[in-house]
Amino acid sequence: MVKARVVVTLKDGVLDPQGQATQRALHALGYGEVAEVRIGKVIELNLDTDDRQWAAARLKEMCDRLLANPVIESYRIERVEG
Amino acid sequence: MVKARVVVTLKDGVLDPQGQATQRALHALGYGEVAEVRIGKVIELNLDTDDRQWAAARLKEMCDRLLANPVIESYRIERVEG
Repeated sequence: MVKARVVVTLKDGVLDPQGQATQRALHALGYGEVAEVRIGKVIELNLDTDDRQWAAARLKEMCDRLLANPVIESYRIERVEG
Repeated sequence: MVKARVVVTLKDGVLDPQGQATQRALHALGYGEVAEVRIGKVIELNLDTDDRQWAAARLKEMCDRLLANPVIESYRIERVEG
């Protein structure tokens, strides 16, 4: 079993309304030091294989085809553990 | 400026419909090796301070009060960089 983690974030320059709303809520709670908030997704996958190299290549495909929207998002495959 | 990253994930045992839908979509695309998918949030914050220790304490408060729902979610403060 390979365990992997993919982090999908909005590209720089893409407006993040969820992050802005969170920043405003934090300010309202007294956390005025919060200068910026950006919110992304973390996708944790278990793959039914023991071949980490194959899994990494498949993960890249999954990201390109489904998990990230290349127009506005970028992704990083952060961990592939066998 | 302190840059921090918080990862918020659903607790074990909490149903993740978004993850299940993603798993089904991956299977439909031919990625039958995907045994489980769990989806969480990654929150990247810039804090207007240079005191990493103070920032870490404030971040823990923010998580407890706003960023995570302690009933169904757990959080990890993964990076606090000055």
